[in-house]
Amino acid sequence: MTDKILELARNRKSTRKYSVKEVNIEDVLYSLDVARFSPSGANEQPWRFIIIDDKEVKKRVRDASEKGEKILYDNVKGEFRDWLLSHGLSHRKPFLEEAPILIAILMKKTAKYATESIWVAVGHMLLALEERGLNTLVYTPSNTEFPKKELEAPEGFRLEAIIPVGYSEDDSMKTSKHNLNEIVFKNNWGTTI
Amino acid sequence: MTDKILELARNRKSTRKYSVKEVNIEDVLYSLDVARFSPSGANEQPWRFIIIDDKEVKKRVRDASEKGEKILYDNVKGEFRDWLLSHGLSHRKPFLEEAPILIAILMKKTAKYATESIWVAVGHMLLALEERGLNTLVYTPSNTEFPKKELEAPEGFRLEAIIPVGYSEDDSMKTSKHNLNEIVFKNNWGTTI
Repeated sequence: MTDKILELARNRKSTRKYSVKEVNIEDVLYSLDVARFSPSGANEQPWRFIIIDDKEVKKRVRDASEKGEKILYDNVKGEFRDWLLSHGLSHRKPFLEEAPILIAILMKKTAKYATESIWVAVGHMLLALEERGLNTLVYTPSNTEFPKKELEAPEGFRLEAIIPVGYSEDDSMKTSKHNLNEIVFKNNWGTTI
Repeated sequence: MTDKILELARNRKSTRKYSVKEVNIEDVLYSLDVARFSPSGANEQPWRFIIIDDKEVKKRVRDASEKGEKILYDNVKGEFRDWLLSHGLSHRKPFLEEAPILIAILMKKTAKYATESIWVAVGHMLLALEERGLNTLVYTPSNTEFPKKELEAPEGFRLEAIIPVGYSEDDSMKTSKHNLNEIVFKNNWGTTI
């Protein structure tokens, strides 16, 4: 009996600062091979992936993403604004240019359970990339149309996320987590384990 | 360098028929511990879990779920109907009673990126349960309110999925999958790897 999955999940940290160290594309393909085997509603496999390693394309994707973020940050209010500021976040997304590789994840809009299936695959991919010693972030653009346009993806697909992949130069801590007994009940809501 | 994640993802099969063999609840808690460490938008950790091992509760959840499925199956048309029939699926969900344990997954509706976060956690959990040798299905009720009511979950949470957990008596084959070069592009849509 192994605890490999727990070890990987526990060690993974969202990474916003990447070193210049190159990424072996075979490791990225490995994670997409894993995604390929993840389950999907009605076996529709609604995922498509674009691996971006071209500097020019990364810059265009960054610029397009920041254009959308600028609109969000100029308008965000209340608790979410406080949370963003307290985490030092801004509309600037340098990791989209600095990470050696980006993985754009596109979803076939008409597939049944498309969103659920895509994100189960993301859950698989993150562990596979961690297994290969790679650091990641799950970036969900505020406006997905701007960067999608740079990738020339067709109408029937939606850009769900961009995952920068590389090696961390980030010393950020793992975020705090609920204890298990705060989130797990037995047989009905409110009955603790 | 290991290929553990690929091995688990590749071996996992959706299981609709479960043996009576009991499940060690520690293995279920292990998978929820893994879910606990999965990333979530703005670190909101919008997940709550109800482990159901009580026969009465399982029966009520099954009945409530089938009530919703009956409405779907009475009204489904076209390609999806053909797909359901060709896979021998019906409104009957005996696995909700036969699997030794069900995990109900609830989502805090107001959390940012709640759906994405929940399903990344599901992607983690499925691999963790597979690691412990357990078989699973991701069941998304057609009407989530009926079974949710049986679990007495509060208004602010949505029942996203029910995962039956147990040992397979199913000899169904792994579903067919796209090849990697059918779903992965390089730098822009249409440029193959």
